[in-house]
Amino acid sequence: MKMKKFINSPENLSTELLEGLCMAYSDKVVLAENKIVVRANPKSEDKVAIITMGGAGHEPALSGFVGEGMLDASVVGDIFAAPGAPNVLAALRRFKRDAGIVLVVLNHAGDVMSANMALQMAKREGIKVAKILTAEDISAGLDTPLEDRRGLAGCIPLYKVIGAAAEAGKSLEEVVEIGERFNSQMATLAVAMSGCTHPQNGQTITELPDDEMEIGMGQHGEAGGGRSKILTADETAEKMVSPLAEAVKAKAGDEVFLVINGSGATTHMEMDIVFRAAAKWLEARGVRVACGLIDEILTVQEMAGFQMILCKLDADHKAYLKARSNTPYWTCIG
Amino acid sequence: MKMKKFINSPENLSTELLEGLCMAYSDKVVLAENKIVVRANPKSEDKVAIITMGGAGHEPALSGFVGEGMLDASVVGDIFAAPGAPNVLAALRRFKRDAGIVLVVLNHAGDVMSANMALQMAKREGIKVAKILTAEDISAGLDTPLEDRRGLAGCIPLYKVIGAAAEAGKSLEEVVEIGERFNSQMATLAVAMSGCTHPQNGQTITELPDDEMEIGMGQHGEAGGGRSKILTADETAEKMVSPLAEAVKAKAGDEVFLVINGSGATTHMEMDIVFRAAAKWLEARGVRVACGLIDEILTVQEMAGFQMILCKLDADHKAYLKARSNTPYWTCIG
Repeated sequence: MKMKKFINSPENLSTELLEGLCMAYSDKVVLAENKIVVRANPKSEDKVAIITMGGAGHEPALSGFVGEGMLDASVVGDIFAAPGAPNVLAALRRFKRDAGIVLVVLNHAGDVMSANMALQMAKREGIKVAKILTAEDISAGLDTPLEDRRGLAGCIPLYKVIGAAAEAGKSLEEVVEIGERFNSQMATLAVAMSGCTHPQNGQTITELPDDEMEIGMGQHGEAGGGRSKILTADETAEKMVSPLAEAVKAKAGDEVFLVINGSGATTHMEMDIVFRAAAKWLEARGVRVACGLIDEILTVQEMAGFQMILCKLDADHKAYLKARSNTPYWTCIG
Repeated sequence: MKMKKFINSPENLSTELLEGLCMAYSDKVVLAENKIVVRANPKSEDKVAIITMGGAGHEPALSGFVGEGMLDASVVGDIFAAPGAPNVLAALRRFKRDAGIVLVVLNHAGDVMSANMALQMAKREGIKVAKILTAEDISAGLDTPLEDRRGLAGCIPLYKVIGAAAEAGKSLEEVVEIGERFNSQMATLAVAMSGCTHPQNGQTITELPDDEMEIGMGQHGEAGGGRSKILTADETAEKMVSPLAEAVKAKAGDEVFLVINGSGATTHMEMDIVFRAAAKWLEARGVRVACGLIDEILTVQEMAGFQMILCKLDADHKAYLKARSNTPYWTCIG
């Protein structure tokens, strides 16, 4: 049976998709060597550069957020596979500057390994670079050490916040402080309703019975432990927002940013309905939803499900989230 | 078997989803009476108002494009069902002004009936309003009369163009001329790879065998006549962009806007790859892709497939497409 996907040769997926992205948004992004997506209009060298890295197959993440006010570059691997250390190093060399670089890494074994190798080599070459690791998945429980948690779609709001801080001329130390503080107040939970097909090998990623869903699934189908019969949107929202609020210690009077990130096949209709329930739950407890986002920002092919991200906002985070940005998939007037 | 969707009660879908949208983007949109979504910050009364109408279930369309630079209001029906004439009339009354109103209607029987009834009543009340009908689907062939063609996702770029023209202070007659000229140079084709489930009655919308796709399908699963074995992304793109280019008479030296609009389950990865192929096809013929868009702007629940929209651009259209806008799902720095 032929795969039900509009693709050409499975080996060229990541190159072809990056070419397509850069053709559609040629005023914003350009595909450089080594599968590195960079801004069409680079920002000035006296500002901190923000770089990220990760496998393809999660579009529009990560490269869809390269542009003014967010990323300077995204280093792209093959489908669901980390880019190699040489490519990450190539990006760090390209953005070498006195102001320094922040490299954002999602906590997945392959990414962390490539990042650490590249960072070691870069430092030997005198490149000033700091790493921020995201690991905000709370599915393993709130007492799980950070290194055992996955980095999910929370990296995208993080790019927005530190990207805006860098654009505003903050120093490397300041950008890292702003980012780590944002990181420590952010949590994500995923839920899956159906699996998906790996576009290169045609293998099914996770199987879920017709009447079941799973809370806590990772973004490559990793087991989450929260399998249950299908719940309503309101029940699902409450089951997710409640531990998220606990994780970020959101209390009455706090302001939050709430994101519903579709995994692929789940409709905007459903995401709207889930957002409504989660926002109502928060507001009933005096937590103010200062801003929201309902969209596919980091997908898992055509998996049905979504990630709910909750970020407790300090005043500067809120301002940076709303600051001007001009990327293919997150534009703010500012 | 329970439907694999995150919903609550099927009767409240459209109200709940609109509430969710307006909670997430409360700085941009507000839910008024009669399921009418309006801007949080209304534009001044001396400018032409742009209103549209249509069934729910196609999120983020149509209401996700209410806001500065695009729509003033969207009148929403039930899932895949036109809003009633009284609701459309309520919206026209709300935006009654000397500058006038443009009502954009997608060519579907129910929408056209409601629109015409509301327009008749509005005119009797002295409301100055002009209708623009979109019917840009070319699946029935290029010689099919306009009234027998469907209005597909091409309405969204139209909102952008006439929204910007209205914001720039153009008169009702000018906005209509700009819009109708854009309309006449725009064409859309849809392709489906799998069906979807109606979220209210649980019925499957269209069935496609495991190894088949269909070019020309309407956005409620209406037959398109172009059923074939699954083609590659490049073959599919060529089979669609070629008649689209013929329809809009794109020739060497022309500038176009190319959109790949995902129907629901088709991945951004696939849409990027299809965009690449279509853009290459055009550029090989000297047609310049001045700007592009790859996103889910008007969906058909979780259907797999996409719509390809091609718009030949006059200079003013290009400027309006890139002009400042600030809506939940289309923001331009301008």
